[in-house]
Amino acid sequence: MRRGRVTPRAALEAIAHLPFESIGPATVDHHRGIRQALPEVILCQGKTKAQCVAIARAIVGKSGRLLATRASAEQALALSEAFGADATWNEAARTVVVATSRRRNGSRARAPAARRAGRVLVVSAGTSDLPVAEEAAVTLEFMGVPVKRVYDAGVAGIHRILGHVPALRRASAIVVVAGMEGALASVVGGITGRPVIAVPTSVGYGASFGGLAALLAMLNSCAAGVTVVNIDNGFGAGYAAGVIALRSRPGGGA
Amino acid sequence: MRRGRVTPRAALEAIAHLPFESIGPATVDHHRGIRQALPEVILCQGKTKAQCVAIARAIVGKSGRLLATRASAEQALALSEAFGADATWNEAARTVVVATSRRRNGSRARAPAARRAGRVLVVSAGTSDLPVAEEAAVTLEFMGVPVKRVYDAGVAGIHRILGHVPALRRASAIVVVAGMEGALASVVGGITGRPVIAVPTSVGYGASFGGLAALLAMLNSCAAGVTVVNIDNGFGAGYAAGVIALRSRPGGGA
Amino acid sequence: MRRGRVTPRAALEAIAHLPFESIGPATVDHHRGIRQALPEVILCQGKTKAQCVAIARAIVGKSGRLLATRASAEQALALSEAFGADATWNEAARTVVVATSRRRNGSRARAPAARRAGRVLVVSAGTSDLPVAEEAAVTLEFMGVPVKRVYDAGVAGIHRILGHVPALRRASAIVVVAGMEGALASVVGGITGRPVIAVPTSVGYGASFGGLAALLAMLNSCAAGVTVVNIDNGFGAGYAAGVIALRSRPGGGA
Amino acid sequence: MRRGRVTPRAALEAIAHLPFESIGPATVDHHRGIRQALPEVILCQGKTKAQCVAIARAIVGKSGRLLATRASAEQALALSEAFGADATWNEAARTVVVATSRRRNGSRARAPAARRAGRVLVVSAGTSDLPVAEEAAVTLEFMGVPVKRVYDAGVAGIHRILGHVPALRRASAIVVVAGMEGALASVVGGITGRPVIAVPTSVGYGASFGGLAALLAMLNSCAAGVTVVNIDNGFGAGYAAGVIALRSRPGGGA
Amino acid sequence: MRRGRVTPRAALEAIAHLPFESIGPATVDHHRGIRQALPEVILCQGKTKAQCVAIARAIVGKSGRLLATRASAEQALALSEAFGADATWNEAARTVVVATSRRRNGSRARAPAARRAGRVLVVSAGTSDLPVAEEAAVTLEFMGVPVKRVYDAGVAGIHRILGHVPALRRASAIVVVAGMEGALASVVGGITGRPVIAVPTSVGYGASFGGLAALLAMLNSCAAGVTVVNIDNGFGAGYAAGVIALRSRPGGGA
Amino acid sequence: MRRGRVTPRAALEAIAHLPFESIGPATVDHHRGIRQALPEVILCQGKTKAQCVAIARAIVGKSGRLLATRASAEQALALSEAFGADATWNEAARTVVVATSRRRNGSRARAPAARRAGRVLVVSAGTSDLPVAEEAAVTLEFMGVPVKRVYDAGVAGIHRILGHVPALRRASAIVVVAGMEGALASVVGGITGRPVIAVPTSVGYGASFGGLAALLAMLNSCAAGVTVVNIDNGFGAGYAAGVIALRSRPGGGA
Amino acid sequence: MRRGRVTPRAALEAIAHLPFESIGPATVDHHRGIRQALPEVILCQGKTKAQCVAIARAIVGKSGRLLATRASAEQALALSEAFGADATWNEAARTVVVATSRRRNGSRARAPAARRAGRVLVVSAGTSDLPVAEEAAVTLEFMGVPVKRVYDAGVAGIHRILGHVPALRRASAIVVVAGMEGALASVVGGITGRPVIAVPTSVGYGASFGGLAALLAMLNSCAAGVTVVNIDNGFGAGYAAGVIALRSRPGGGA
Amino acid sequence: MRRGRVTPRAALEAIAHLPFESIGPATVDHHRGIRQALPEVILCQGKTKAQCVAIARAIVGKSGRLLATRASAEQALALSEAFGADATWNEAARTVVVATSRRRNGSRARAPAARRAGRVLVVSAGTSDLPVAEEAAVTLEFMGVPVKRVYDAGVAGIHRILGHVPALRRASAIVVVAGMEGALASVVGGITGRPVIAVPTSVGYGASFGGLAALLAMLNSCAAGVTVVNIDNGFGAGYAAGVIALRSRPGGGA
Repeated sequence: MRRGRVTPRAALEAIAHLPFESIGPATVDHHRGIRQALPEVILCQGKTKAQCVAIARAIVGKSGRLLATRASAEQALALSEAFGADATWNEAARTVVVATSRRRNGSRARAPAARRAGRVLVVSAGTSDLPVAEEAAVTLEFMGVPVKRVYDAGVAGIHRILGHVPALRRASAIVVVAGMEGALASVVGGITGRPVIAVPTSVGYGASFGGLAALLAMLNSCAAGVTVVNIDNGFGAGYAAGVIALRSRPGGGA
Repeated sequence: MRRGRVTPRAALEAIAHLPFESIGPATVDHHRGIRQALPEVILCQGKTKAQCVAIARAIVGKSGRLLATRASAEQALALSEAFGADATWNEAARTVVVATSRRRNGSRARAPAARRAGRVLVVSAGTSDLPVAEEAAVTLEFMGVPVKRVYDAGVAGIHRILGHVPALRRASAIVVVAGMEGALASVVGGITGRPVIAVPTSVGYGASFGGLAALLAMLNSCAAGVTVVNIDNGFGAGYAAGVIALRSRPGGGA
Repeated sequence: MRRGRVTPRAALEAIAHLPFESIGPATVDHHRGIRQALPEVILCQGKTKAQCVAIARAIVGKSGRLLATRASAEQALALSEAFGADATWNEAARTVVVATSRRRNGSRARAPAARRAGRVLVVSAGTSDLPVAEEAAVTLEFMGVPVKRVYDAGVAGIHRILGHVPALRRASAIVVVAGMEGALASVVGGITGRPVIAVPTSVGYGASFGGLAALLAMLNSCAAGVTVVNIDNGFGAGYAAGVIALRSRPGGGA
Repeated sequence: MRRGRVTPRAALEAIAHLPFESIGPATVDHHRGIRQALPEVILCQGKTKAQCVAIARAIVGKSGRLLATRASAEQALALSEAFGADATWNEAARTVVVATSRRRNGSRARAPAARRAGRVLVVSAGTSDLPVAEEAAVTLEFMGVPVKRVYDAGVAGIHRILGHVPALRRASAIVVVAGMEGALASVVGGITGRPVIAVPTSVGYGASFGGLAALLAMLNSCAAGVTVVNIDNGFGAGYAAGVIALRSRPGGGA
Repeated sequence: MRRGRVTPRAALEAIAHLPFESIGPATVDHHRGIRQALPEVILCQGKTKAQCVAIARAIVGKSGRLLATRASAEQALALSEAFGADATWNEAARTVVVATSRRRNGSRARAPAARRAGRVLVVSAGTSDLPVAEEAAVTLEFMGVPVKRVYDAGVAGIHRILGHVPALRRASAIVVVAGMEGALASVVGGITGRPVIAVPTSVGYGASFGGLAALLAMLNSCAAGVTVVNIDNGFGAGYAAGVIALRSRPGGGA
Repeated sequence: MRRGRVTPRAALEAIAHLPFESIGPATVDHHRGIRQALPEVILCQGKTKAQCVAIARAIVGKSGRLLATRASAEQALALSEAFGADATWNEAARTVVVATSRRRNGSRARAPAARRAGRVLVVSAGTSDLPVAEEAAVTLEFMGVPVKRVYDAGVAGIHRILGHVPALRRASAIVVVAGMEGALASVVGGITGRPVIAVPTSVGYGASFGGLAALLAMLNSCAAGVTVVNIDNGFGAGYAAGVIALRSRPGGGA
Repeated sequence: MRRGRVTPRAALEAIAHLPFESIGPATVDHHRGIRQALPEVILCQGKTKAQCVAIARAIVGKSGRLLATRASAEQALALSEAFGADATWNEAARTVVVATSRRRNGSRARAPAARRAGRVLVVSAGTSDLPVAEEAAVTLEFMGVPVKRVYDAGVAGIHRILGHVPALRRASAIVVVAGMEGALASVVGGITGRPVIAVPTSVGYGASFGGLAALLAMLNSCAAGVTVVNIDNGFGAGYAAGVIALRSRPGGGA
Repeated sequence: MRRGRVTPRAALEAIAHLPFESIGPATVDHHRGIRQALPEVILCQGKTKAQCVAIARAIVGKSGRLLATRASAEQALALSEAFGADATWNEAARTVVVATSRRRNGSRARAPAARRAGRVLVVSAGTSDLPVAEEAAVTLEFMGVPVKRVYDAGVAGIHRILGHVPALRRASAIVVVAGMEGALASVVGGITGRPVIAVPTSVGYGASFGGLAALLAMLNSCAAGVTVVNIDNGFGAGYAAGVIALRSRPGGGA
């Protein structure tokens, strides 16, 4: 293989097309970096109410829409107050979505993408995994991706997931959310040929070690095609699945 | 609750009935402890060939039978040479079983037990888990417990284990052997109401950390009734299942 | 060994007999999975008072009885209020048991089983291990299994456990609950030939690492026949011991 | 949300369409599970030469093609001998690919897919990561997915990866292979809006703890859209990227 | 070596002389085990105020004296109220010592031992280690062992410990209490030829991991003669040093 | 190599020149040892308000200046009250700096050093890392070292750090503060030839394990010249960078 | 408490009496540090045969005696060849002891000490722990301390250790050597009131994690008076026990 | 603070001055990254003999000099053969240095730097740490920095390091190399006010866990100014110390 042929010239040209230049001087704190395909997100955790509202105003002023994740009740109320009827609080998901009228007119790119995006299944094992699953689902909906929720389908009752085989095989991608031993990811991965993104949750106790057991299980999945995100990272899984779905071709199940 | 009423007198009487008194002066190394229901076992690992043969002769001389576990090829050949046709080497299981004619006459207690013992299923996930599964199966057979092997039934192909549902529900106990993410234990535990003993194996790589991933997964199983033994401890799982099966009543599945 | 002969036909038939079909449309959250032999259990942890009561009503309405585990004082009071004199709160065990008159008439299968079930010993090392031990004991009683409690029998005073040798050798199964170094499981496992289910607890400090020390010790027990459940999982140990006891034959000690 | 409406009937129908029924009675060990979109793969690790050849013959006899991963030099030579000119050994990747003439006629589905599949970039940080990167690349090629290799692009010389920004932004998916601190995944994830699949490698020493440092870093990536597979799991990453690429629509960079 | 010659007879005689028989029916919870040389201790942690007082009364009623460790302010006040002027609360050490007039007359064995006991040095590294160091010192004083405290002598100012070399070389034993990197144990161990008992503390942050760093450092001490107790276990270290000091001969330094 | 030639004489002379002799009898609690070049620091964490003020008065009385780190709001207010206008509270950094007029006359050594010290860059990845970065910056300023802050420059937006290349290459030292995956340290280390001191922070969740992920990543940095301090140890990094900067020669970038 | 009164003068005087001044210029590598009471020891591990012999000659030339630990067969043979009949190789313990005639005349201090030293018990759990136990025993013998070996006394056969209760209660100190779950230390600690030094061994597999399970168990022992050394550190335990025994008063058991 | 003002323009200019542009097309693998101040280094580990020689020839052809680290005996001999008398193999350090005549004429920048560089002390604790210490020393010498070695100065014999106090206080930087408990770093850090770079080594056994104990200890050092590199990373520590020394001003000790 050839290598080492990168000249300073080429590097200069490359960086000139980095995705951030269009952000301009109004850079706000997007924690987790510039959301490449999704710049309108803020992580509320670790911010004051005032900071959340200020950053949210900057984003909404620019793009007309916003997804705030890991919002405490206090933060959610502050955002709801700031944006009124444009704000929707999903308490389970700990998210606030803001959608102004300007968005409906202005954000051309998103809606067409949504029309063509494939459907993503969000599957969760138990009731306690629901907040993480909802965070993934809300993220996908914010991206304009159709979502189907299959909750409470843990492997201790294997029939629950088997009832969804056709949907699992037709989805553009599947997000699997599970704590404890995380076995659901392997079972789903064995049923479908579509991309599976596994989210270990911190649900459990004792030797779950805050989600470590589920994390290791998912990384060691005997089913090919399973990839993993950080513990409780519903946003990350939803975003990764959304990126796939937005560009996936329709077609027969596999 | 009452407590503290144990008098020295009671303690004295109790210890007079401890299970070891019948062993007498011929104490040999029994896998680190008196195998309560199975005193004829030696763990070859960490012993020289000569030590293995000497201890084996002492045991066979007393009870007419022997189970040697974790025997290397060298150790197995030495034992085979010492006991001739009475010895059976299971290369996959790394075991040598010795059964002399004296056993058939002398060990009364074992055979009747075997006639009444329930059947145990030994289920394994992948080909690489076979040595551990075989160690469990040979241990059970040595205890006089009927064994059914269901191998290569990992959850990535969920139909493989589903094909054995009736047997899983009728077994006296099930030994589940799996490495990687160990999800098979949860799936089996969700199907059957019978005791499930899970054996994590060191099969895997990277973040399996020598079987830690499967161990943690099995300890966190969402299916009730799953208990766990040490990584790769096929003997321990087989022994524990055998102790249950030897005293379980026959009856309808659950 | 033969394998790979599972046809789609056989898999279909197998799944038709899975244990969940009789549950019907009234599925409620059963501690993450269908409790195969014990569907009337809810795990209160992580649920609101209202959720606990609603699920409890659904279960009691169907089966006339209920075991609620990990109930906070608040949740326990809500359940007590909902079920009145039919509810019994064990504060130490953090359990609420509901038994309606309908149960006494309707649940035929349980009582006969109880009459035939062997006795289980629940042994604990120290006072701080009591909540976990009681959770196991209450679970067993709910299953109709006779229980004998032997508490505060840690190995630092070895006479305390030696005073119970005859009972240990006659039990259908023994649940051993211990934190700190968990040595009690090995001592008990060396005394009895009956199944020993060890529960590490998070009791301890410093290098106990939340129960990890006891967990590892129990997994490495030098006594054969010891199997292990998750840290603080009194319910799981009680359930596993109960499943064994409900089908064990009476007979002489070993 | 509604749940619990899965009837035994529905479950029966679902399982009737599981992806494995077409495999028939000739089940062989497919890397621990049915490779849903890629059934022609064997993991040589842990198998004897004879086993590798036997399984390979069964697969090639059925599908006309084969990918053998983690093949030692010995195993690779045995396969090369068995399949002659149809076999291609990639020593760096430790793979053997078999493609018979029958494949060219018979496997219709694969080639058209390949024509439509998007390109995947395989990016690696250092020379020592090459075997894992090559395993991913060969897997992709076997799936019919076009691959572009960008090797030796670690972040200590940031210009090396910056020279590939346009390609990173146009790929259907990117596989990032890095050991040590695994920072390359975050840098790539910050540059592109396409799916990034990160593979930590065991390259490093001391506090890399066999790849743990890179694994944790990748799971904690500050760039959204990064998902992770097990340490050194080049096959898994290539497969996951391939599944995405085979169904991704062409279109402008992001 | 000979072994296996223990007869049931010998075991019976041995147990008849175990140290617990004199405890009789009034068994109370003695810090999880019979404190062999120190039965008058209770661990308050995990007990209610009422339990602490009840157990304390039982102990004081029998032996006239008591050491309560890990007493919260609340528990300490309850004990002070119960025993009045006989109780002494050491707030830093979180201990309460009770000494009744009956003790001064009745406990003959302790005082003479104290007269002959060698002196123990309790050395600590930083101000934050003081509670653990005081717990050790109070334990020693309760055992009748003379104590010299050398506090705030961490190795970052090496002169501080060097100023105590003669005392270190003449002590019967030294307790070294240190958090963070725990290096003080090695420096002290290199200066003295007397027994050194090291207590890692949970003082520190980040990669101290709750005392793990100090624990590992002390276990790996390059100075011979250093032994280690659990993190923050001041009582255990004081007790172990006391047992040595109570039986050590006077004599020249080493 | 020669060794072992250290005579007691030489050791005596050496210790006579240890840096602590000038401290004299007024030793106060400097936790973390004698701050060799910076004796006027106190760590407030773990101290009462009264202790903080008392120690602060002793230090200020002697040297005219003080740096208090990890000061809670309560502690900071107590110090502000005690020193009035001489005290400056940096709430983000959790520091209080006291500078009396006496300092301006008396502390000759510091000011000239400051005039000659090179500039240090403090670079941080995200908003949540700011407290640690500010602690480093304030420490440097207290040492008289010029500081340039480059905040919110995480690698997910690689352009943010690339905009500071000239400054990175001219600094006397760079402190890099980052949580999550800590990749910023490697990127900075690859850009500059100057000493890089990396501070992992506990910012993150799930598999960041309280900063472990960033710590391991930084220790495994593929860029030479990166050294690491404890998690969240902004003071330590600032101090180490300051010691370098105070004695670094001016000169062209590298 | 008073502190901070150490003057440079006092520190100077203290260091003048450090134990190393009598070593003089002939410093050799003494197991990483001056063995305070035992300077004649070398750790062979990590040294060439030539280095071992050279250092051994230096030590024997000075003191007439030597203890070499962790000697491979090769190193042991080289030492045996060098010292002829004066050398004694204990193959199990991996030690070589050299005792020249000069020792018998010259080393006055050791023999009288031996006459007065109390007896130490070395107790081990299983056959595989023997090398570590023997290393401890040989170390004690080299120090002139009488040793009683109690081997193969693991808790799975509790009668084995109970047969030694009188000896355990009369010993000056007890060294307990155990791998796997290390429960023997707690049982012994509960029987005796004498100092117990526990040595975890790396014997075990799976979740023993190279001795970690036994180490944690011993650190968390519920029996007071148990202190712990590093995994497999027979020398360290023997040395620590010897230091106690050499200065312990004779007297009645406890 | 201001931020977000980086324009694409500024980023473009910045990258135009990155240190790599002068490397040109002859890019070779430089220890995973451009050694900013030291491009002539190769890490032999993981490379074939032929690769080592080829890369070495490329580097020497360009710069006239080379440092090869982690060279096995085989690799070292291949390099020695390739470069003849120009090559110097340090077997202990596992390094090969090549210095051609061209270097003496051509590499102007290095020699003057060397003339002005301050002296670095390399201090090690024990004999087994020597390879890592030598790697650091050789790296420094290669950079033209004067080195003083202080070996075998572990804290168990505290006088050994105290004999070097003046040198420690005058050095430009100190590299401290220690395994086991790593306490030497804290003692050195407490003596000197100069930068201390600590290198944990994998020397030790049992609970040293391959150097983890020393690593954690050094990260938690109670002495300010200590920074840490990866386990066994002598090159990294030497390089970091060299970068400091090359630009440090001469001056009085601190």
